[in-house]
Amino acid sequence: MRKVLYIICDGLGDLPTKGKTPLSSAQKPNIDSLAKQGQCGLLHTIGRGIVPGSDTAHLALFGYNPYKYYPGRGTFEALGARMKLKAGDVAFRCNFATVDSERKVLDRRAGRLKNAKPLESAINAIKLKGCTLKFASTVEHRGVLVLHGEGLSKEVSDTDPHEIGRRIMRCKPLDKSAEAQRTASLVNEFTRHAVSVLRRHKFNANRSKPANALLLRGAGCYSKVDGIEKRYGIKATCIAGGALYKGVARFVGMHVPYVRGATGRADTDLEAKARAALSALKEREVVVIHIKATDSFSHDGDFEGKQGMIERIDKMIGLLKQEAKDAYFILTGDHSTPVALKAHSHEPVPVLISGPQMRSDSVKTFDEFSCASGSLGHLTGLELFRTMVGLTRKAEKFGS
Amino acid sequence: MRKVLYIICDGLGDLPTKGKTPLSSAQKPNIDSLAKQGQCGLLHTIGRGIVPGSDTAHLALFGYNPYKYYPGRGTFEALGARMKLKAGDVAFRCNFATVDSERKVLDRRAGRLKNAKPLESAINAIKLKGCTLKFASTVEHRGVLVLHGEGLSKEVSDTDPHEIGRRIMRCKPLDKSAEAQRTASLVNEFTRHAVSVLRRHKFNANRSKPANALLLRGAGCYSKVDGIEKRYGIKATCIAGGALYKGVARFVGMHVPYVRGATGRADTDLEAKARAALSALKEREVVVIHIKATDSFSHDGDFEGKQGMIERIDKMIGLLKQEAKDAYFILTGDHSTPVALKAHSHEPVPVLISGPQMRSDSVKTFDEFSCASGSLGHLTGLELFRTMVGLTRKAEKFGS
Repeated sequence: MRKVLYIICDGLGDLPTKGKTPLSSAQKPNIDSLAKQGQCGLLHTIGRGIVPGSDTAHLALFGYNPYKYYPGRGTFEALGARMKLKAGDVAFRCNFATVDSERKVLDRRAGRLKNAKPLESAINAIKLKGCTLKFASTVEHRGVLVLHGEGLSKEVSDTDPHEIGRRIMRCKPLDKSAEAQRTASLVNEFTRHAVSVLRRHKFNANRSKPANALLLRGAGCYSKVDGIEKRYGIKATCIAGGALYKGVARFVGMHVPYVRGATGRADTDLEAKARAALSALKEREVVVIHIKATDSFSHDGDFEGKQGMIERIDKMIGLLKQEAKDAYFILTGDHSTPVALKAHSHEPVPVLISGPQMRSDSVKTFDEFSCASGSLGHLTGLELFRTMVGLTRKAEKFGS
Repeated sequence: MRKVLYIICDGLGDLPTKGKTPLSSAQKPNIDSLAKQGQCGLLHTIGRGIVPGSDTAHLALFGYNPYKYYPGRGTFEALGARMKLKAGDVAFRCNFATVDSERKVLDRRAGRLKNAKPLESAINAIKLKGCTLKFASTVEHRGVLVLHGEGLSKEVSDTDPHEIGRRIMRCKPLDKSAEAQRTASLVNEFTRHAVSVLRRHKFNANRSKPANALLLRGAGCYSKVDGIEKRYGIKATCIAGGALYKGVARFVGMHVPYVRGATGRADTDLEAKARAALSALKEREVVVIHIKATDSFSHDGDFEGKQGMIERIDKMIGLLKQEAKDAYFILTGDHSTPVALKAHSHEPVPVLISGPQMRSDSVKTFDEFSCASGSLGHLTGLELFRTMVGLTRKAEKFGS
């Protein structure tokens, strides 16, 4: 049996600016040496021309067809926040926001609130007819709301207007089912209660930007899936900072330990993540390491920031290579986020597989250009995952 | 119309040992000249990362999606043994074995019995309630059992414990259907009768390792499929030694002649197979030549043996090239069986297509490394089969 370190740099792929991408500009001797020893290619995470979300992309990278298994973003956020979900529970991402007396949004983040924990119990005290609710404050102004009860649906619209100056939106059913109608009513009832509770909360007494509303988005409906151990015969750990990625990993049955210093931001402690990964590799066949900041720099249009982050990741990989000599390394991203676009794009992401007894190809540097002539060719996220299971030598033969 | 010689070397693909595979080490001037004139690529028989069995791999290579059409191994073995099957018949591979008085297996092959034909009629005389049976002794200790009757299922477990020192297993239903329950009971009843009949058979009178039990495995359930002539408009012959491959070929409606000297082992007469293929090519568009021993050498971990077998295949191809100047040649394997693993693996298999008026690429030698840059790219077994049908120029246009 072989072990695999499966390293995902969020939004890694890019488009050239004056002929160079952050990846092709970066000094990355450790990554390039993996490329040289191994095989490279281009990854279309969901399929050619599809612009992946982070959630659907990770489902595919973890071996689950997102067209079949995507439960909606809210579900992953709830799982990422360690909330317990039951089949049929509907979950939303939430923002504490500042609204005026006509419920017009003045600040979508309530002055980028540092800590909204003191508001949690007041929200959890809200009563709705025919369903129970559970709210958790997560990071800064963010939180997750879970509705639990019979006959709920995720086919409802956001209440978050996604821009300032507009009023909180009415939640609307997105199909004609009774469940969607009912859920939309419950969300609107919740939103009224939340405004009323928050308006008079002492936490907001002296704030210039009071947290006096909750904006909901990304409804998801949980249903249990067979985990990767049952489906693919392997055990995996996921080392990540961002709640979303932890949530997707938990959804597919990966172990997700707490790693001090793993923040999902540029200030993340990559050495701590590497140490946690090496420790987890003793007990599992596969350890995923997710690094978010490459994507965040892209969303900010910061070419040098992204390049610098890649150089830090190279150092982390150097450390991993020293300690895990017999392991396979897979390095890729979940999608391209070109700096020039500040948004996800359909362009494929470079991918490499390196390890013992590889059919090495002629690619010597790891970037968007050279990987195009690699021997892996073009592959999808599901294909990459299955290939990884193959490498563990734990894949069950189909037929005899 | 063009003719195609479709040559499948079982378990052909490998992983490098000190940078070389049996294929890349072999002297194979005829194969390399086909590669030079033609187009190369890498074949993922069933799909990326999937470890194929020999049976499912051949279904795919013969144009049938194994996820849809796989009837279970036993069916192919029965067809390979020229047994007649009706829809719903359940077939098993069997081994004559030596067991002690507690039905503990002492030898899974009853001393590798040379000829079990004398036992055939005694087994066929066994009566079961509500189904009839037909047993055929095939090669050495091997045989095939077919159960015929209403309401049978292939969803039952093996009675073969697959190792010595363990007792014959009880056959268990693998799903909750009444059919599976009934079939499992019939198999257990059969196993009891077989032990009782064989124990007192005169054939076993003076044997140190009596053939006093039958171990069953690989249940399959036959259902007729449209043959390749109906589905693809081509007629094909398959030249093979191994019963399994003959069985898959018959299942999809290929003609399978008897070829003296074709054994499915390393002692097979490749020249006889080539002669039979050339003769069949006069009457059919496609002739498959299956060679088993490459895989067998891999399962034995024998690098030089595999390399030598490839060199013998090269000579056979030299003969074919001389005689079939206008034909297309397709050369590939059904899966990789790396010598170092002694087992099937997910790694793709080199493939070449050579013949008149090809869009030749730059690949000059046929191996796992160079084929990665071939113009066929990465393809599946179904895609290769359809490409072959295209080359015959008998493919029906889709649309108008």
